[in-house]
Amino acid sequence: MSELVTVAVDAMGGDNGASEMVKGVVLATQENDHVRVILCGDEDTIENELDKYEYDTERIGIVPTTEEVSCDASPVMEIQKKKDSSMVVAMKKVKEKEADAFISAGSSGAILVGGQVLVGRMKGVDRAPLAPLIPNKEGISLLIDCGANMDCKPHQLVQFAKMGSVYMENVVGIKNPRVGIVNVGVEEAKGNQLVKDAYPMLKNCEGINFIGSVEPRDVPYGVCDVIVCDAFVGNVILKLSEGLAMALVKMIKEEVMKSTRTKLGGVLVKPALKGVMKKFDATEYGGAPLLGLNGLVVKIHGNATHLEMKNAVLQCVDFTQQRINDKIREKIQDMVTESK
Amino acid sequence: MSELVTVAVDAMGGDNGASEMVKGVVLATQENDHVRVILCGDEDTIENELDKYEYDTERIGIVPTTEEVSCDASPVMEIQKKKDSSMVVAMKKVKEKEADAFISAGSSGAILVGGQVLVGRMKGVDRAPLAPLIPNKEGISLLIDCGANMDCKPHQLVQFAKMGSVYMENVVGIKNPRVGIVNVGVEEAKGNQLVKDAYPMLKNCEGINFIGSVEPRDVPYGVCDVIVCDAFVGNVILKLSEGLAMALVKMIKEEVMKSTRTKLGGVLVKPALKGVMKKFDATEYGGAPLLGLNGLVVKIHGNATHLEMKNAVLQCVDFTQQRINDKIREKIQDMVTESK
Repeated sequence: MSELVTVAVDAMGGDNGASEMVKGVVLATQENDHVRVILCGDEDTIENELDKYEYDTERIGIVPTTEEVSCDASPVMEIQKKKDSSMVVAMKKVKEKEADAFISAGSSGAILVGGQVLVGRMKGVDRAPLAPLIPNKEGISLLIDCGANMDCKPHQLVQFAKMGSVYMENVVGIKNPRVGIVNVGVEEAKGNQLVKDAYPMLKNCEGINFIGSVEPRDVPYGVCDVIVCDAFVGNVILKLSEGLAMALVKMIKEEVMKSTRTKLGGVLVKPALKGVMKKFDATEYGGAPLLGLNGLVVKIHGNATHLEMKNAVLQCVDFTQQRINDKIREKIQDMVTESK
Repeated sequence: MSELVTVAVDAMGGDNGASEMVKGVVLATQENDHVRVILCGDEDTIENELDKYEYDTERIGIVPTTEEVSCDASPVMEIQKKKDSSMVVAMKKVKEKEADAFISAGSSGAILVGGQVLVGRMKGVDRAPLAPLIPNKEGISLLIDCGANMDCKPHQLVQFAKMGSVYMENVVGIKNPRVGIVNVGVEEAKGNQLVKDAYPMLKNCEGINFIGSVEPRDVPYGVCDVIVCDAFVGNVILKLSEGLAMALVKMIKEEVMKSTRTKLGGVLVKPALKGVMKKFDATEYGGAPLLGLNGLVVKIHGNATHLEMKNAVLQCVDFTQQRINDKIREKIQDMVTESK
């Protein structure tokens, strides 16, 4: 593959500022020769950061911008008004086909709005879902939707299942990925109205490997590869997993500090605990793509470090080289044809 | 308090059969003089179990039944047809005021249906929520609804908040319990339609201490005492917490077994891990009450041991002695009056 993949990066978004974003970008270009990055943001700030590294000047460029999207204001207003913000300018690079992908650690709401409004939805896609990879005991699963569509219709969940299957098969490399719908029991009659309506549609949907309902208690064991749910439920799963894992580790540490015996044990056991936590560290898996758009939009954590940024850039390369959007277009097109 | 609290127990429900149920009942009557238990189920089986213990024959009685409610069949049909089942007969004791409370480890669906149909909802209560106590880093919170009402209306969530507040204040003893609604962010504009509609109603509701939205990541830290949500979301929170805690502990054990150093550390650290897991052991806190009925209906885990049954019986005593249902009736009545 000789063509370069171009990624437009919002260098000003996120809690850690431009330093982590720029460092991640430099590392990614060093690790992969097929990527080119456009850093959008304050010129001086970005240049100061870039000066710290040796990098291929032909593959990292700067587009100066004067504004920043705020996390505290209305996402819709921010996207509409701040036309010279690092986020809006970077997104427009994707819209105008100057870039294949966009990455930001900035306001989630603004990324979701901008993705739909500026980059735009693929023809036939009803809603664009946010789909992070989440760690489980055996590997990783795709959680789709996890932040974009709080109130879904059944056929939208079917589209999520299709898009998620394409992603897992082609980006993560899982053949015939197992699709499950989050439910409160495994019986078909269980669930809320959305799940009850979506279940038979998923069951009858061609081109996906639907294995039925997946109970939340089994999610951490990796019982399926594509976990389908509305964004409210997806967000509960993602955030509760993060919060609970951290709370448990804190509690274990506190208990360990209570006696000399357990303190000594704690020192010895530390590498094991670290190994488990590393497995559960979401930053290892890049960012969360907003699927079904005319280009790739990736959201990384607000507190993303250079490591998460680097992985997100590499993820954009895979996504583009694997022609994921063409494949999603085909699968969704099937669906439009089927339902006629 | 000289009056005895009477608890009707479905002795045949649950995976562990009558032995654990009967043992738990015997222990509860030994620990508390103010409780009387009616064991409903197969007479021979129960007598055989009772014969193993010394117990107060005046405070443990048997009502022989010939049928058992199945977990695999339709809950509605089971409740309608199996009139001489241990579950239906025990529930009818509450309906007929021969018992104050009912406990079963049997089919959740049948308990929910039976609670509404046989015991019946309190006047003014629109839906009866299932409300287990769940452990957190600092103590316990009430998760309401966690299994009964998958699709809720906003005013139902307000009723859940009121009923949950009464329970936490009077059974658990938390003064002015903090009520939070599960949401994907703390801002009032966030959430799905249900949460957006319920939020202002909760904010304006008198007689509860509403603290706003609670993010799932903060739930394990005990940021509020009454966690309000629909049953689908509640079930996801409960089951994912159980599943993830177990998965993490399994992973830590597996990592620990990988080297001699960490193995030795594991032996030393074991008491600390056990301490944490005990804190997160739901069986410590009795069963999940179905609130808002004309009597108390308590569901315990399908695999409940004698310990959980014992705690559930003692919980029924507190509930009845604290006149929780009278207090719920007053609070709901306020609401009916307010809305006129």
